[in-house]
Amino acid sequence: MGNTFGNLFRVTTFGESHGVALGCVVDGCPAGISLNTDIIQAFLNRRKPGQSIYTTQRAESDLCEIVSGLESGVTLGSPIAIIIRNNDKKTNDYNDLANIFRPGHADFTTFVKYGIVAQSGGGRASARETVGRVAAAAVAKAFVQTFYSNLDAVAWVDRIVDIQAKVNIETLTQENVEESLIRCPDKNAADKMQQKILAAKADGDSLGGVVRCIAKHIPKGLGEPVFNKFEAELARAMLSLPASKSFEMGNGLAATYLCGSENNDFFTKDNDEDVVTQTNRCGGIQGGISNGMPIDFCVGFKPVSTIFKAQKTLNKNFEEVKFIPQAGRHDPCVLPRAVPLVEAMFWLVLADFILKNQAYKFKKF
Amino acid sequence: MGNTFGNLFRVTTFGESHGVALGCVVDGCPAGISLNTDIIQAFLNRRKPGQSIYTTQRAESDLCEIVSGLESGVTLGSPIAIIIRNNDKKTNDYNDLANIFRPGHADFTTFVKYGIVAQSGGGRASARETVGRVAAAAVAKAFVQTFYSNLDAVAWVDRIVDIQAKVNIETLTQENVEESLIRCPDKNAADKMQQKILAAKADGDSLGGVVRCIAKHIPKGLGEPVFNKFEAELARAMLSLPASKSFEMGNGLAATYLCGSENNDFFTKDNDEDVVTQTNRCGGIQGGISNGMPIDFCVGFKPVSTIFKAQKTLNKNFEEVKFIPQAGRHDPCVLPRAVPLVEAMFWLVLADFILKNQAYKFKKF
Amino acid sequence: MGNTFGNLFRVTTFGESHGVALGCVVDGCPAGISLNTDIIQAFLNRRKPGQSIYTTQRAESDLCEIVSGLESGVTLGSPIAIIIRNNDKKTNDYNDLANIFRPGHADFTTFVKYGIVAQSGGGRASARETVGRVAAAAVAKAFVQTFYSNLDAVAWVDRIVDIQAKVNIETLTQENVEESLIRCPDKNAADKMQQKILAAKADGDSLGGVVRCIAKHIPKGLGEPVFNKFEAELARAMLSLPASKSFEMGNGLAATYLCGSENNDFFTKDNDEDVVTQTNRCGGIQGGISNGMPIDFCVGFKPVSTIFKAQKTLNKNFEEVKFIPQAGRHDPCVLPRAVPLVEAMFWLVLADFILKNQAYKFKKF
Amino acid sequence: MGNTFGNLFRVTTFGESHGVALGCVVDGCPAGISLNTDIIQAFLNRRKPGQSIYTTQRAESDLCEIVSGLESGVTLGSPIAIIIRNNDKKTNDYNDLANIFRPGHADFTTFVKYGIVAQSGGGRASARETVGRVAAAAVAKAFVQTFYSNLDAVAWVDRIVDIQAKVNIETLTQENVEESLIRCPDKNAADKMQQKILAAKADGDSLGGVVRCIAKHIPKGLGEPVFNKFEAELARAMLSLPASKSFEMGNGLAATYLCGSENNDFFTKDNDEDVVTQTNRCGGIQGGISNGMPIDFCVGFKPVSTIFKAQKTLNKNFEEVKFIPQAGRHDPCVLPRAVPLVEAMFWLVLADFILKNQAYKFKKF
Repeated sequence: MGNTFGNLFRVTTFGESHGVALGCVVDGCPAGISLNTDIIQAFLNRRKPGQSIYTTQRAESDLCEIVSGLESGVTLGSPIAIIIRNNDKKTNDYNDLANIFRPGHADFTTFVKYGIVAQSGGGRASARETVGRVAAAAVAKAFVQTFYSNLDAVAWVDRIVDIQAKVNIETLTQENVEESLIRCPDKNAADKMQQKILAAKADGDSLGGVVRCIAKHIPKGLGEPVFNKFEAELARAMLSLPASKSFEMGNGLAATYLCGSENNDFFTKDNDEDVVTQTNRCGGIQGGISNGMPIDFCVGFKPVSTIFKAQKTLNKNFEEVKFIPQAGRHDPCVLPRAVPLVEAMFWLVLADFILKNQAYKFKKF
Repeated sequence: MGNTFGNLFRVTTFGESHGVALGCVVDGCPAGISLNTDIIQAFLNRRKPGQSIYTTQRAESDLCEIVSGLESGVTLGSPIAIIIRNNDKKTNDYNDLANIFRPGHADFTTFVKYGIVAQSGGGRASARETVGRVAAAAVAKAFVQTFYSNLDAVAWVDRIVDIQAKVNIETLTQENVEESLIRCPDKNAADKMQQKILAAKADGDSLGGVVRCIAKHIPKGLGEPVFNKFEAELARAMLSLPASKSFEMGNGLAATYLCGSENNDFFTKDNDEDVVTQTNRCGGIQGGISNGMPIDFCVGFKPVSTIFKAQKTLNKNFEEVKFIPQAGRHDPCVLPRAVPLVEAMFWLVLADFILKNQAYKFKKF
Repeated sequence: MGNTFGNLFRVTTFGESHGVALGCVVDGCPAGISLNTDIIQAFLNRRKPGQSIYTTQRAESDLCEIVSGLESGVTLGSPIAIIIRNNDKKTNDYNDLANIFRPGHADFTTFVKYGIVAQSGGGRASARETVGRVAAAAVAKAFVQTFYSNLDAVAWVDRIVDIQAKVNIETLTQENVEESLIRCPDKNAADKMQQKILAAKADGDSLGGVVRCIAKHIPKGLGEPVFNKFEAELARAMLSLPASKSFEMGNGLAATYLCGSENNDFFTKDNDEDVVTQTNRCGGIQGGISNGMPIDFCVGFKPVSTIFKAQKTLNKNFEEVKFIPQAGRHDPCVLPRAVPLVEAMFWLVLADFILKNQAYKFKKF
Repeated sequence: MGNTFGNLFRVTTFGESHGVALGCVVDGCPAGISLNTDIIQAFLNRRKPGQSIYTTQRAESDLCEIVSGLESGVTLGSPIAIIIRNNDKKTNDYNDLANIFRPGHADFTTFVKYGIVAQSGGGRASARETVGRVAAAAVAKAFVQTFYSNLDAVAWVDRIVDIQAKVNIETLTQENVEESLIRCPDKNAADKMQQKILAAKADGDSLGGVVRCIAKHIPKGLGEPVFNKFEAELARAMLSLPASKSFEMGNGLAATYLCGSENNDFFTKDNDEDVVTQTNRCGGIQGGISNGMPIDFCVGFKPVSTIFKAQKTLNKNFEEVKFIPQAGRHDPCVLPRAVPLVEAMFWLVLADFILKNQAYKFKKF
């Protein structure tokens, strides 16, 4: 259970960190959408590790193969299955882990729940699991942008520990973000963040922070009250990402420090035409439904659990042991690689809401 | 769409703020659970407005009627339908709202999405909608505590604006919380919070803050990776509550300021028996699955949108208007009443995960 | 579990035969549909027992109350909850049943599954359960006919035991069916059927037969391959009806006696415009998707299990007993009352497929 | 939409007839089940065409690869993805079909619904689609038989056109069925059926018939009333198979010719121990719930639509054309190959009901 996301744009992912392959099946992508492996590969490449010294050096080629749902570069309306084979399975690197409940990891809870744990690398509870999500999100994005060509989402590293980026969200583009090795478009902050990451790496430690995401040109009316409010599904999507700890919609926690008279967004007309709000503290969603303003949210990520310091823990015989992982291939800071994951989950949420909203476009007045 | 929560413990709610009745249908409560209206009424009464000068004076008797699924005080395994009739429909109080898109409310997005808005009181996008959730949660709690009698959840007002409560989570009980008119068990902080709320009320303004919830004696192994992680479903549940803005799991945003070596929880044995973690920064969930430690999370709520100050907005003819609601019956601070709502959503999430986990208790080793 | 039908037009029913009330919640009816209790009552009245000597004399007023989702006679897009109170609970009539596993009934399986059985009248496993479906179907039909005013479905009693009706399906109307006390529009066959039913009644026995249903002016393209083919969902819907035993799509079993060259429907053009098939042996569905021809199917119903003859069975102490129900209020032949139930389930299936199809009306060619 | 089956034992299939690969993802198989490609291949081989002159000669090796969810021959509790690559894609064989709406096929409805049709071989609307179901069913069967080792299902060709097999269902085994080239365990009838099939083949025509399936040693209490009755889900499962036209539960249509006193199954005790029914006309299900007797049902299949005779139809320009397929690779009679498909769908239905039933095994009396 738990490996399917969405109702009408429905994604099922599969694959263990060190198994034969990972991938996804996308059921519910409309027919007639232009799609090819390049589109998916481009998104996957942004997720890929080994892109800089700031991220894990595990070399994953992550080449995708579309095995169904497509003919002559166009979707058929049938399920789109995408496979990414594992080709860097140095299971020896992980042999020391086989009998250890690593602190902060899912080894213990997986063992308790299933009575069995993949022998190496975290199995399904590995950041590698997100490969399938990203491949699916590339399909979602292709679908959405086919009909809403201006609609785009840009995420970035907004804070690492206490280093807060200053970003002009009016002019920000994904190119601005990708120019930075750690995906922070504020160069000044990015420099400090990079130093902090390298210091943590040298110390065998890890760091957390916040990714922020803004999506513009959102159609009005998306989201389904009561339990499937847009922000509720976003929150679920983001908290399903490995290492995520918090979700804030719009001004988020900052709202809790304001009075209602300071926090309310006032409706007005843009150029005497479109209804807009003068501010966007709500982050583009009111009562669970998009109001057409940019969708704006933040996701907090903890420092990754794998550190190269001695830690006390238990082994599978429930004996206390000291544990230091062999110098391996792990991110000292997950934030830069979390950026495309946050975008990916946004696209999955959005695509599903667009289809749901379309379903009810039966109005008689 | 959007009015059903859960998969195996499945709750569907219905009812508009000023309609004939609200309620819920609970499908999937096991047979044989002791249940009666008193159990449900007790939970509903905690949600009820008009309990103190700190909350809205709208007098809702909120008497529940169980119309199915029960015989001789025991559940039959069939759907449990519960009805709460509206008996305080002073629609005149809201007449001034009929043509206004109130700032911060869902009037505009509801109108855009459905082409129609309930003429008064917010319809489905009203805090009154939560009546159905609470009734359902009472059933969920009765089910869970039948089999896990020690398992309990306690939520409280942890912060209002910048007034932070100090709470001993080891000894805290729901009684401690309920003794406080504003459901803050730290009397010193509670006094300051109450003064702040009264000042805001006098000023026609509103305040936000944070509710924290801790649940103890949780079975290990609950939660379904990948997309239905325990924290993901909790986040969705909490962000589906009216006025909620943020969700933090365990130490939440605080984790983003720590190093991995500071944030990891170390496994150890409790009295040489049970596996526990020395700290509980993760909030009782690892890799989406409960580890047996207390589940601990925070939900941020914005200051409610209804304030008694002039605000600029648009009416349904898209004309700019000034809007001041007539002095009405609204909470200056939603936090005290959000406490039982946070607990309610927790019980709904928990009951569903318990059933899901039970479904797979087929193990062959 | 099991009390919700449909994905986008989603119906949850509740209520025991002898409980406080029965009813349904319809989530997913588009906003702006004209609806009132008369529309629902009219459908419910067709289901009601006691309409003739051919059906049970249990007097159920079955008055419906719409408690949510509606304002000023128009749907709001929120859940529509409908309640029908029980007012004829002569539980004494059923006292003799309390400890008996009645042959052919669900008493035994309910007891095994839930460990508890409603003390009288079959609880949820009673034909009375269908009240909620019919109320929901009235909403579905109102929605569908708002946008497809010509689309209609007519079911009738096509066979009782070996008496087969001859019906001109080109000209048949629901009025033709309703003119007959047993809902068979072939008067000659109807007379024979009525005699047969009265004879069975006099003998304390019961009879089975077949209901056929035809729906015209169906939009092309409805149905979702692979597992949610139109005929598959219809089959499920019909086999969920009490006492149903078989489902045939189009010419059904007759097709199994034909060669492909006899069974294939040939495409042609109607008045040089619309694509039609020369015959309609497939019953309007090909590959799970509607082709625009009439949807045509049959449902077989067994003779109802309640008969007024001595039968051997077991009681709840698993002792062998002889069992004769007290002369009570039961249909000697369920077929006439099954007619509106078959239609009801058709409308529920159709409404859901219309919304699903609409969801994917994103085409780029 | 429509490519997922089941709720807790959840199968998603993918793949076009002439695409790169077909397969399935099984989410919800419990951990710890022994599984390997041999188990899946054995089931796939029974589905494979080209097994005799009575079935299509298309040579499909149908070799399966398990790419996730398994380690050291044991399931991990994570999604099991299985891939079957297409290696016999002679698309030229089908070039003549590219612009034709073949009579009886889904070409027209697929075109109408999706605006696009796979250029050859039927795409998703091909019998080849069932490969994914069969692979998934092998997993379901492995799971079920791990815990219910006696539980087994046997299907067979019970009738072709008017040739009815006589089968002793007490002693029947799958070996008896597999000994027959056309999977009819009555040798006498099988001989006649084979002659009839060869005659039809010689004539370029096709034949239909009925597959019956019996499953023994079923746990009591499976099935979820009201809408997810066991027979309802079976009916849906069977009507989702290509070319299926009818479903009969237990004695099915025969029940409609009986009186209640003839049709009711009487409860009694088997060896003074287990509750059984003296007869099994209901087919092992009462009120939607299994009573422990054998589950017994029939599925009718039409003569396949592909015949080698001239037929009138339309092309994609909506012009009338004469159509004769080139002598190709098609079954003159789908029945023998439908046998493992009927079993496959049974296992998928059963596995899901077993998990659902287990979920609610919380009883307090």
